[in-house]
Amino acid sequence: MNKFAALSSEMRRMIETGGLRYGEKLPSMRMIARSRRLSMTTVIAAYRELEAIDLIEARPRSGYYVKFDPSLSLGPKRRVRLAPKGLKTYRDLMPDLLAETDQGSRVLRLGVASIESSLLPREPLARLTRQVLRTTGTQAFEYADPIGLPSLRRRVATLMMDRGVAVAASDPIVTSGCQEALWIALQSVCKPGDTVAIESPSYPGAIKIMQLMGLKAVEIPVKPAGLHLDALEDALRKHKIAACYVMPNCANPTGWVYSEETKQQLCELAARRDLPIIEDCANADLYYGASALPALKRYDRSGLVLFCSSFSKTVAPALRVGWMVPGRFAERALELKYAVSLGTPVLQQLVVDRFISEGSYKRGLLRARRVLATTLGQMLRWVDECFPPGTVSQRPFGGMCAWIGLPPGVDSDRLRLIALEKSISVAPGRMFSPSGAYTNHIRLGWGGVWTKRAEAGVRALGAIACDLSRGTRGLSTA
Amino acid sequence: MNKFAALSSEMRRMIETGGLRYGEKLPSMRMIARSRRLSMTTVIAAYRELEAIDLIEARPRSGYYVKFDPSLSLGPKRRVRLAPKGLKTYRDLMPDLLAETDQGSRVLRLGVASIESSLLPREPLARLTRQVLRTTGTQAFEYADPIGLPSLRRRVATLMMDRGVAVAASDPIVTSGCQEALWIALQSVCKPGDTVAIESPSYPGAIKIMQLMGLKAVEIPVKPAGLHLDALEDALRKHKIAACYVMPNCANPTGWVYSEETKQQLCELAARRDLPIIEDCANADLYYGASALPALKRYDRSGLVLFCSSFSKTVAPALRVGWMVPGRFAERALELKYAVSLGTPVLQQLVVDRFISEGSYKRGLLRARRVLATTLGQMLRWVDECFPPGTVSQRPFGGMCAWIGLPPGVDSDRLRLIALEKSISVAPGRMFSPSGAYTNHIRLGWGGVWTKRAEAGVRALGAIACDLSRGTRGLSTA
Repeated sequence: MNKFAALSSEMRRMIETGGLRYGEKLPSMRMIARSRRLSMTTVIAAYRELEAIDLIEARPRSGYYVKFDPSLSLGPKRRVRLAPKGLKTYRDLMPDLLAETDQGSRVLRLGVASIESSLLPREPLARLTRQVLRTTGTQAFEYADPIGLPSLRRRVATLMMDRGVAVAASDPIVTSGCQEALWIALQSVCKPGDTVAIESPSYPGAIKIMQLMGLKAVEIPVKPAGLHLDALEDALRKHKIAACYVMPNCANPTGWVYSEETKQQLCELAARRDLPIIEDCANADLYYGASALPALKRYDRSGLVLFCSSFSKTVAPALRVGWMVPGRFAERALELKYAVSLGTPVLQQLVVDRFISEGSYKRGLLRARRVLATTLGQMLRWVDECFPPGTVSQRPFGGMCAWIGLPPGVDSDRLRLIALEKSISVAPGRMFSPSGAYTNHIRLGWGGVWTKRAEAGVRALGAIACDLSRGTRGLSTA
Repeated sequence: MNKFAALSSEMRRMIETGGLRYGEKLPSMRMIARSRRLSMTTVIAAYRELEAIDLIEARPRSGYYVKFDPSLSLGPKRRVRLAPKGLKTYRDLMPDLLAETDQGSRVLRLGVASIESSLLPREPLARLTRQVLRTTGTQAFEYADPIGLPSLRRRVATLMMDRGVAVAASDPIVTSGCQEALWIALQSVCKPGDTVAIESPSYPGAIKIMQLMGLKAVEIPVKPAGLHLDALEDALRKHKIAACYVMPNCANPTGWVYSEETKQQLCELAARRDLPIIEDCANADLYYGASALPALKRYDRSGLVLFCSSFSKTVAPALRVGWMVPGRFAERALELKYAVSLGTPVLQQLVVDRFISEGSYKRGLLRARRVLATTLGQMLRWVDECFPPGTVSQRPFGGMCAWIGLPPGVDSDRLRLIALEKSISVAPGRMFSPSGAYTNHIRLGWGGVWTKRAEAGVRALGAIACDLSRGTRGLSTA
């Protein structure tokens, strides 16, 4: 490792393990250069890298400050049986969504990670649906190969190339959204009683699958630049782990992206340990950067990565069209797709196929990325402004949501209930951890153009959080 | 039991156990009346009942003959691990369908139980789809409650009333076809290693789920009038059985219907033994009779019946809209629906909802029943005429397919391969039994108006079967 990389790695580790804390000022570059006998060029390059992966930020005329707070992810957790306190009943699963169902559309949904109507390509989808019905006879209504239409599978294989993955046209399986892909992936590599290593925080829909399958979970801390691989190695030594479930590109709820180095090392570790990796890339195409993010699967030489993604976050959620590339687990995944649903609706497959081929998909992504980067920036600005002192957050690299840590002691379940009385919904932190951690965290998101109404909602949430925070302090001093 | 019922039951048992064989002439009514000291009225009533459930048939100026051949169902089978010889790979699952995918639409599909284009309501579906897109804004593309739209769930609850089942509007869960309903049902009541009692023959899609879940199966013989309950009791004494999977109304592949007495007794047995019953009613609405068939769930006082059905056989398969009423297993079924697919596409739910409300559903059923009754009659007539001596079949009571037993020794896998060279596909018998039985059986079906092409196909199959049968005889005499 050269001097620049060594310095950068060391500082990253200090931040990620809490040695340098959120909001703390970094030593000046000049001081580092002097104390370590490094050139200023080397130190500047290291700081720039940390800034690029959003671990530190420059403040004008003041220097560099730590941006990542380790309380946004847990330390390595003991293995837990998946009966999360927070996810006991069906109603607990999608509190914001079901609240809306109960109370009508007047609920402001600030907890979902889903496209808002301003970004939904209603008109092209309606036009293409009419076109498909007009031009394809009865095809849209008749049985087809359960694993998907050959034309769409070919199209999806091409999309994979943008992510640096070369797959055959026949490799992808079309699924009912990423959720069914994850279900099939977990059923392909795990059996009840098995233990899965997951990121902490992780996606509630995947946690629920694991719970229903009777799996156990080990939570591995995750940082803006990726999974804590040492913690994963440690977990692999202590437990028999059947699979690892990760979101390397624009995770839900954090929006973080693994560094390419981390992706590569994770694949090497998987190959060494013969460990299947389930890669959830549902939000990957919503990366705010200019170029597409390489998939973890790009580094997969052994077929151990089961890649899962969908068009739910990038075209429309209710299409329920997703896909997977199951690597060496293809035969079992094919059979599972047949057994779970006998196929994805043909009409939607035809529509998505045309949506991509006419260029609407890429055009929509360009717009969505630009809009969402601005929206999330706005949202976090209002969080900084209105939430109580001690609130921590970390800018997402992509997607529609961010992960917010409220001051310790502020109960995000209470926050949710009070907010719901004001017709605002948020996703409480406990949904994102099988051990029921993150009781003072929330997922906050907005999947469209930023509006005055959304702004008012975030300000109202901030006011509630401030009240709760004062209550907490009052209690602790009483 | 009165004298009429006693005689009827005794004769039914003799036929179903093979004591009276297929094609055999029954003793004359006069002889029975004399030997058993019964009135002619009693004997006539008993024969009429057996005729009504299609176990015997009157031949003009000749008397009554046995119609059911017990070789169409197996005797009670030992418990088998579900790794069916015949269903090893994905390609083995839907041989006819995938053959068509490979060879284009010129393959005549005589093995599928699926609506053929002449019965597919293409025009109303296309019109309603356009209407939904025009009138519902972005609803068709946005997330909704994963368990289904409230309006469609209410509509489905009403349909259940036609089957004699009173359910609340909130009880049904909308699924991606009956296949997903079965997946959720089996995942609701079984865990890997469990044993399930199933009909023999049974539906390949359900057998595949059981295999992938790591379940074991006990095959229980089934007769045109229902499951062999004594055999089920016997299996329950010998094995720990976690659930029972049945198709009481218009089974696939046989098209048989349980007598109401059998349905009632099965529910009583389930309650006594605390045995969950998965009821697959996908074909029930295609009953050729005048009135709707009562569901097994009608007799379910203890919430043990998980009712599953769909619109795939009655509206269009690729809609992938089905439903389930999970009884006392509701909470787990709700969570599973969320975890498996995050919901059924909203567009299709809205279209099916309107299809029912405008009356197209009931009108379509009236036509389909009339057409299919005629079609299956025609089909079996050509089977009688062209298939080799020793072929047995049993008229279905509803649905799109019939179960044909070829003379012992005729290998239906070979039949399938030879037929495929002539661009005709059939479903080989081994698909319908986890123990790989029924090697000389086929499912034969046609889901539309009977055509010259279908007739030519059945005749060609008959010719192949005759060749194979002669080959068999040749071998056995050589």
